[in-house]
Amino acid sequence: MSLITVGTMAFDAIETPFGKTDKIIGGSATYVAYAASNFVKPVQQISIVGYDFPEEEMQALRARGVELDGVEIVKDKPSFFWSGRYHEDMNTRDTLVTDLNVLADFNPIVPDSYQGAEFLMLGNLMPSIQMKVIDQLKTRPKLVVMDTMNFWMASAMEDLEAVLKKVDLLLVNDGEARQLSGQYSLVKAAKTILQMGPKYLIIKKGEHGALLFHGEDVFFAPALPLEDVFDPTGAGDTFAGGFIGHLAKTKDISFNNMKTAIIVGSAMASFCVEKFGATRLKEVTKEDIDRRVQQFKDLVSFEIELV
Amino acid sequence: MSLITVGTMAFDAIETPFGKTDKIIGGSATYVAYAASNFVKPVQQISIVGYDFPEEEMQALRARGVELDGVEIVKDKPSFFWSGRYHEDMNTRDTLVTDLNVLADFNPIVPDSYQGAEFLMLGNLMPSIQMKVIDQLKTRPKLVVMDTMNFWMASAMEDLEAVLKKVDLLLVNDGEARQLSGQYSLVKAAKTILQMGPKYLIIKKGEHGALLFHGEDVFFAPALPLEDVFDPTGAGDTFAGGFIGHLAKTKDISFNNMKTAIIVGSAMASFCVEKFGATRLKEVTKEDIDRRVQQFKDLVSFEIELV
Repeated sequence: MSLITVGTMAFDAIETPFGKTDKIIGGSATYVAYAASNFVKPVQQISIVGYDFPEEEMQALRARGVELDGVEIVKDKPSFFWSGRYHEDMNTRDTLVTDLNVLADFNPIVPDSYQGAEFLMLGNLMPSIQMKVIDQLKTRPKLVVMDTMNFWMASAMEDLEAVLKKVDLLLVNDGEARQLSGQYSLVKAAKTILQMGPKYLIIKKGEHGALLFHGEDVFFAPALPLEDVFDPTGAGDTFAGGFIGHLAKTKDISFNNMKTAIIVGSAMASFCVEKFGATRLKEVTKEDIDRRVQQFKDLVSFEIELV
Repeated sequence: MSLITVGTMAFDAIETPFGKTDKIIGGSATYVAYAASNFVKPVQQISIVGYDFPEEEMQALRARGVELDGVEIVKDKPSFFWSGRYHEDMNTRDTLVTDLNVLADFNPIVPDSYQGAEFLMLGNLMPSIQMKVIDQLKTRPKLVVMDTMNFWMASAMEDLEAVLKKVDLLLVNDGEARQLSGQYSLVKAAKTILQMGPKYLIIKKGEHGALLFHGEDVFFAPALPLEDVFDPTGAGDTFAGGFIGHLAKTKDISFNNMKTAIIVGSAMASFCVEKFGATRLKEVTKEDIDRRVQQFKDLVSFEIELV
């Protein structure tokens, strides 16, 4: 049951109230791969890196069952670089540097060995690039999940609308859901977005949890209340990786199983924020994940007799 | 199993993006009484009103099992009046008018007939007034719940600290928890506040739900995702009334039952915001409440097998 993940592999330099990093490994596809590979193998990565992307990081991914045949290595350009500084509340950040570098030339090619994958995770990229991947697949995956961002709503709305018609599930944050729908109420925003193509919508609300909408059904998953959010970078992609990883593992894309998948995604995201970058994700064990999922169960379980 | 509720009975004039009201009945004790009286009788009210408080509103409360022996009627002054305007996001508001009127003279007297009550809800009032009520009770209630606000943290912190030492459960919103504790992380804020007296802490996050803390335990209840929040006035007091009403009905103050009580409180609050003021609360039936509680169960229930 293979999973294709398309997105960036990058260097990030991060400042938070807790400290700062030099260039560390980041990128949406990296986080998705680290999260999803706990649940499904192979994870088939499509991305682009420059001459400077460390071979040991590639090896670390391969060791977890991540296939890199779809990762183009550009010999004469550096990898995508992003640098940002988080504010005290950890919910807002300033971007300090965005060097597209190799990303400006990203023309994803789906290797033959990836054909037939049943799950596709389209990380946040220019919508026309996401579409190129969809167009190359000879068999439509069982489930196509896409992430996007407000930038494309402002600059490439027509392309974005075309991709939305091709996917099963859209994953955005609350601000993006409001911008895409033109509705302030998230319930109304969901109704509007579910008319635009996807049959499922997840609205991520960061520390306030996530909502899953499908038809008239709605499910809410909290974020785990944490003493400290050390570094939120990659938490959304880690959530996506845990979510689609669980679905691919269980081969069940029912609404009921998506609820469970959201809890798994939230559990993975709660690890991600505990250390800089993907550091914590590289360490977590199956036992850690099981224990964390149980914490989510305890967090929301209640009993009531209606008498 | 009686419940004493102490707080304001007032006139409110409210503007929201959906419309505006003339003076309608409000006040923390009013909302607590309307919510709690679905679960427990009698609700024993302690408050103060002026010559202008309508007798039919008093009758409406009495008809629901609310005792008003502890409500002082001042013949020569008008009732407390508040007017406010909500912003588009419905989470923030501007206060337009605060006329304390009779509230400036509030000196609560606990009637003999209220002695022996096992539950006490101290609505948001000057801490010294809350203390006066505690001091008059001949038997300590089984559970004392208090609400407060940031205004008292700035203007009467010493009195507030004294009351905190006397109560079992504090109910505040996220901003107030941060101000009271000096901690941004709500988990850290909870640890600090649980050192200040109360053994239980509920942090209300409005549309983002509520957290219950007790020792190392934590429970999270979502708010119901609503198409429209029509008027949030009184939602917090309605939550408190549903919460303590359920506890009083079931005579069970365990952490487990408090989880259920928070869901009941959240359900009652979700009705409150559907119409102006207490309008919707006056209409809801037991069937409405049961159905709403079931919606909360559906909203957060998920199944997972850890294999």
